[in-house]
Amino acid sequence: LIRELAIVGVGLLGGSVAKAARAGRLARRLVGIGRDAGRLRPALEDGTLSAITTDLVEGVSTADFVLLAAPVLAIEGLLAEVGRAAPAGAVVTDVGSTKRNIVRAAERLFAGRPPAFVGSHPLAGSEQSGYRVARADLFQGATVVVTPTEATELAALKRTSEFWEALGARVTSLDPETHDRTVAAISHLPHLVACALVDGACRVEPAALELAARGFRDTTRIAAGDPDMWTEIFLANRDALSASVAAFREALGDLERVIAAGTTVELHAALARIKTMREGLR
Amino acid sequence: LIRELAIVGVGLLGGSVAKAARAGRLARRLVGIGRDAGRLRPALEDGTLSAITTDLVEGVSTADFVLLAAPVLAIEGLLAEVGRAAPAGAVVTDVGSTKRNIVRAAERLFAGRPPAFVGSHPLAGSEQSGYRVARADLFQGATVVVTPTEATELAALKRTSEFWEALGARVTSLDPETHDRTVAAISHLPHLVACALVDGACRVEPAALELAARGFRDTTRIAAGDPDMWTEIFLANRDALSASVAAFREALGDLERVIAAGTTVELHAALARIKTMREGLR
Repeated sequence: LIRELAIVGVGLLGGSVAKAARAGRLARRLVGIGRDAGRLRPALEDGTLSAITTDLVEGVSTADFVLLAAPVLAIEGLLAEVGRAAPAGAVVTDVGSTKRNIVRAAERLFAGRPPAFVGSHPLAGSEQSGYRVARADLFQGATVVVTPTEATELAALKRTSEFWEALGARVTSLDPETHDRTVAAISHLPHLVACALVDGACRVEPAALELAARGFRDTTRIAAGDPDMWTEIFLANRDALSASVAAFREALGDLERVIAAGTTVELHAALARIKTMREGLR
Repeated sequence: LIRELAIVGVGLLGGSVAKAARAGRLARRLVGIGRDAGRLRPALEDGTLSAITTDLVEGVSTADFVLLAAPVLAIEGLLAEVGRAAPAGAVVTDVGSTKRNIVRAAERLFAGRPPAFVGSHPLAGSEQSGYRVARADLFQGATVVVTPTEATELAALKRTSEFWEALGARVTSLDPETHDRTVAAISHLPHLVACALVDGACRVEPAALELAARGFRDTTRIAAGDPDMWTEIFLANRDALSASVAAFREALGDLERVIAAGTTVELHAALARIKTMREGLR
C-alpha cells in the first residue's frame, strides 16, 4: 500500500493511474501535479485526486511513490528536481515510451540520493489524450515493461512491479537498451512506416486516398497520432529506430526481389511464413 | 433488371453478390458456377441460387449478365471460354483486384465477339473467405471501381455501373492503368509493408512480437491475409507495385533524414502534414 502517491502529469496515463488507484484503494492520498491548475481541477472535482498543486517540489516532498506521467523529454527535464525533492525511501517511476535516456539520466542525477528510480513503460494508450479520456481500466491486461539496471534497488523494483500489477497489468522486465530496440521494432517503426505509406500514396497517385479501402485505413490509423508526442519519441529513440528501419528495409527488399523474380512458390512460402508469425501475435 | 445472372465462383464476393441480388430481386434467375459442386450446394440449399453447375459453358450460355468472381489469375484463365460461350448482348464483368491484365486479355479475346466486357473491382472483402462469410450487405456503401477503355461499349458500362449501384455500392471509374497504380498504393503496398514489418521486427528483436502492442497488431493485421490470393495479386500487379514501393521508400527516406538531423521543427511539420492527409481519409 502507498501512503501518498504523487502523479506528475494528469493526462490519459496519469489520470488513468489515478482513477485505478482510487478505485482499487491503492493509496491513502493521491496528489496531482501539473503546470496548469485548470487542467488538474477536473480530477480533483470528481473525487479522484485528494489534492492538486502546480509546485513540483511541494507535490513530491511528502510522497512515498512518485509517477512521472509526462512526455519523454519532459520526464528527463523533471528528474533533477524530483531527485532533490522526493523523500528518502520514496520510489520514483515513469511512463516514458523510451527508456535508455531517462534511466541513464535518473541514475546520474539520483546517484547517492534518497529516492530510488525504476523505469516503466506501460504499453497502453490511444490516439486521444487528456484526462477526459482517462479510465480506471486502461491497464487491465496491458503489458508494462519495467527496465531495471545493475544500479536498480531490488526493493524499489519489486514495489514498482507490484504497483503496476495492482492496476491490472502484466509486468515484463527488459534492460533499457533491449526495451528501446523492441519498441522501435513494434511501435516506432510501424508508426514511421504508416506515415511514409500515407505520404508515398499521395506521391504516386494523388487521387489514391479518395479510394482508400479498409486495409489502408487500418494500416495507417496510427499515422494520425499526435505530432508533438511522436516528434519527441522519434528523436529520443532515433538510434534504435534507425536499426529497425534498416531491418525493415532488408525484409522489404527480400520480398521485392522474390516478386520481381516472379517465382510463385518462393513468394507463397515467404507470405505463408509471415502469416504464421503474424498469427502468433497476442 | 437481369433475366439470368451467372456467377462464376461462389465464395465471399460471388456469394455476397448472389445474396444481395436475391434480396433485392435484381435477377429472375441466379446460376452459380464452380469446379466443386459440393462447395456450390450451400448457396442452392439456402435458396440463394436458382441452379448450380460445374460446366462453365452450360452455366453462362443462357445468361445476360455474367460475373467472374474468381482470383485474378483464374479470371484471366476463364475469359476465352466465357467469351465463346456467353450469348450476344450479354455483359461480362469481374471482381479482380488488378485490372490491366484482365481488361487487356478480355479485349483481345472478346474482339468482334458477342458478349461485352467491363472490368470491375469492388473494394470490399475481408481476411476470411468462402460462401459461409458471404453477406447481402457486403457492398452497401463500398466503393466499386469500373475500368472502361476506349473499346468499352457504353451501354455495357452503364449496365455494369447500375448493377453495382443496385447492390448498394458507390461506383467510380478509372482507366485500368490508373486503377492498378492506385490499388498498388492503397492496398498492395500496405500489405507488402505489413509483411516486411512483421518479418523485420523478428529480425531485429526476435522477442519483440511477444510485446506487440495494439498499434502493431492493427498495422500488421493484413499480413495475416491469404498467401494464395496475395501471391497472385503481387505478381499480377508487380509493375505498379514496384513504382509504389519506390515512392514509399522515398517518403520513408525523407522522414529518416529529418529524424537523423534531429530538427524538431522540421520533423513536427512533416508529421503534422501527414496527420492531416490521413485524417482526410473516409
